[in-house]
Amino acid sequence: MSIGPVIGVIGAGQLGRMLALAGTRLGARFAFYEDVPSSTSETLGKLYHQHQLQDFISSVDVVTFESENTPVALVDQIAQHKPVFPPAKALFTAQHRGREKNLFRSLSIQTAPFALVNSLAELEAAVESIGLPAVLKTTTEGYDGKGQAVLRSPDDVVSAWESIGHRELILEGFVHFQRELSIVAARDAQGNTVFYPLVENQHQDGILRLTLAPAPAVSAATSAQAQTMVQAIMDTLDYVGVMALELFDTENGLVVNEMAPRVHNSGHWSQDGAWTDQFENHCRALLGLPLGDASQSVNACAMLNLIGELGNWQQALTVPHAQVHLYDKAPRAGRKLGHINVTADSEAELQQTIERVQGLLG
Amino acid sequence: MSIGPVIGVIGAGQLGRMLALAGTRLGARFAFYEDVPSSTSETLGKLYHQHQLQDFISSVDVVTFESENTPVALVDQIAQHKPVFPPAKALFTAQHRGREKNLFRSLSIQTAPFALVNSLAELEAAVESIGLPAVLKTTTEGYDGKGQAVLRSPDDVVSAWESIGHRELILEGFVHFQRELSIVAARDAQGNTVFYPLVENQHQDGILRLTLAPAPAVSAATSAQAQTMVQAIMDTLDYVGVMALELFDTENGLVVNEMAPRVHNSGHWSQDGAWTDQFENHCRALLGLPLGDASQSVNACAMLNLIGELGNWQQALTVPHAQVHLYDKAPRAGRKLGHINVTADSEAELQQTIERVQGLLG
Repeated sequence: MSIGPVIGVIGAGQLGRMLALAGTRLGARFAFYEDVPSSTSETLGKLYHQHQLQDFISSVDVVTFESENTPVALVDQIAQHKPVFPPAKALFTAQHRGREKNLFRSLSIQTAPFALVNSLAELEAAVESIGLPAVLKTTTEGYDGKGQAVLRSPDDVVSAWESIGHRELILEGFVHFQRELSIVAARDAQGNTVFYPLVENQHQDGILRLTLAPAPAVSAATSAQAQTMVQAIMDTLDYVGVMALELFDTENGLVVNEMAPRVHNSGHWSQDGAWTDQFENHCRALLGLPLGDASQSVNACAMLNLIGELGNWQQALTVPHAQVHLYDKAPRAGRKLGHINVTADSEAELQQTIERVQGLLG
Repeated sequence: MSIGPVIGVIGAGQLGRMLALAGTRLGARFAFYEDVPSSTSETLGKLYHQHQLQDFISSVDVVTFESENTPVALVDQIAQHKPVFPPAKALFTAQHRGREKNLFRSLSIQTAPFALVNSLAELEAAVESIGLPAVLKTTTEGYDGKGQAVLRSPDDVVSAWESIGHRELILEGFVHFQRELSIVAARDAQGNTVFYPLVENQHQDGILRLTLAPAPAVSAATSAQAQTMVQAIMDTLDYVGVMALELFDTENGLVVNEMAPRVHNSGHWSQDGAWTDQFENHCRALLGLPLGDASQSVNACAMLNLIGELGNWQQALTVPHAQVHLYDKAPRAGRKLGHINVTADSEAELQQTIERVQGLLG
C-alpha cells in the first residue's frame, strides 16, 4: 500500500528516471506507461504496458509525460480521469512548429521569420518574403535535421519541396546568433513561478554536449527578457510543471527557437547546482506542493553529457565537486547515457574543472 | 538486463531506501533481502524473501546491510559467494558491547569505565571498582533503554541482577558529558578514508531529533581526535563502507559511546550539506569507486527528524533551503517517517531557519 501519492509518467527514459528519483525523496511513488521495459521502469516504479491504460490510470493520482511527442489524444483520454500536467494544450502547441511560432508571435516574442506553406506556390512566395538561406521543415515531427532541407538559392526550392513531400511545411529564415541559451522555469497550479538562471548550451551534431550555468556574461536585462518570455508562455497555456525555452542570443536580443513542455537536458545541472532541482520542482508542481528555490547554490556549474559511451567515468569521480549521474543504459552511438555535473567558485575554475573531467573521461 | 552492478541490501527500511536513491544515480540497481514488504522494496528494487536467499545471492554483485542487528551467520554465509561490506568482523564487534569496548580500549580510545559480569559476585566487584551510579546492560541486543538497569546505590545491585536475568552483562560507569557528538567516515577497500565533519546530536526519549553540522564550537584538536578514533577502528577492522562513531564531548576530551557499522541517521544532513552524501560514499565504497569529498558544501546545516507524525511538512517546503526527505511509511508513535535538512550561511541563521521549520511543522 502506498502512503504517498502515485505519479504516473508516460515514457520511462532518463527523464522519467530522474523525476522518480526526485519524487521518491518526497514520498511519492511512480508508475510508468511504456511498451518497452527500461532500466527506469525496471527499477523505479511499476510498468504498465500500452494495453494496460485503464490499470495505469487507476493506479495513479496525477500524470505527466517525458516527451513532447506524447500523443495528445492519449493525454486527452487520461485527463478525463486524472489530472495531467503539463496541460494537453502545451503539448498540442509544442508538437506543431506553426502553432508554436504563432503562439510566440501572439505574445510578441521574437522568433525566426517564418511562413507556413502548403504548396509549391506558397513556398515560392515565402522564399520571396523571408529570403535565403532558409530552412524548410515539416510542421510536425522530425528532429535532429530529419524532415528538413536547407534552401540556399532559388534553384533549391523545387527540389526541397519534392524531397520532403509533405503537405504542410514551414519555412524558417536563418537566425544569426552568437550562442544558444535556454531558460528552465516551473509554474504551479496557482500561477506561482520560479526561474532557473539562463544557461548556455553547446551542441555538437545536433546533440547537447555542455551546459554552463549561469550563461557567462549575461546582462540583467537579457535574463529579465528570458523570464518575461517563458512567464508569458506558461501563463497563456495555464501551464503546470517545468518548461524549457530554447533561445538564440543575437545582436538584437533573444530570439526563441522552441519550447519543451517538460524537464529538459539543459536543466540537469540543477541537480547539483541549484537549491531545488528541476525534477523536484516538476514533482512539486504536479503534487500541488510549494515550488522550491530555483536559484544557484554555487557560483558556477556545468553539465557534460555522456553520449554514446561512458568513457572512464570512474576517474571523473576523483575530481572534487564532480557528480556523476548514469542512466543504466547500454552504450549506443548518439545515445545519452548519463551526465556529469561539476561546480566551482568561479567561471575560470569551472573551465579548468570541465577540462580536467573531459581529460579523465578520455 | 542490468547494465550496472546490483547492490544487495539486507533490510529494506529508510537506510536501504536512501542507499538505493544514491546508488541508482550511479547506475547501480538494488535487491533487498527482507521478509516484510516495505515502501523501499516495493519501489526501489527487487525484493527477495528470506526463503529466497540463494536467488538473492545469485542476483547481486555485492551485499551490504542496513542494521547492526543483521545476523553475523547470514553475512558469513553470503560472504562465501559474494563480497559483503562492511565486513562481518565489524558487525560481530558492534553486536556485543563487551567486544566493542574491548576493541576501543585496545586502540587506546577512551570509553566509559566498564566491566563484563557473568555472576552476582562479579557484578558486586565491578560496582566496587567502577563506582555508582552505573548502568547494567546486556552485552548483546537491547536498545533504547531495554535490557538495562540504572544502579544508583548498593541496594540496587541484587534487584538489577535479578531483573535483567541474563547470563552475560556489562556494567558501565556514567560519563558526564556536555553534549553528544558523532563522526561519520567512509573507507574504501584500498584503505582510503574520508571524514564528514563532527556533528552535534540532540536526542529526546532516546531518539535522535536534531543534528547540527558542523557541531558548533568544536576545536580543530577535537575534530582531529574524532578522526583519529574512527580511522583506527576502521583500519583495524579492514572496514569498507560508511561507519558512524557516537561520542560524548566531555571535559577530558571525547569519550566513545558506540559505533554503528552502517550509514547513520546523524549523517543524513550530508544529502544537502556535503559535496558527497554518506549514502553515495557508502555505495562508492561497495562498488570500488573513488570516494567523494565529504566536506561541507554549506557553512551550516541541520537535520530534523520527523518522528511519529509528519506534521505540516508541505509548509516546510516554503522555507528557502529546506529539503524534505520522506520515507513513505505509515505514521506510528516513535517511528522515523522522514527528515528535513536545512542549510544556512551561519549558525545564527541556521538556528532561525530551524525554528521557522519547527514552527511550520506544528
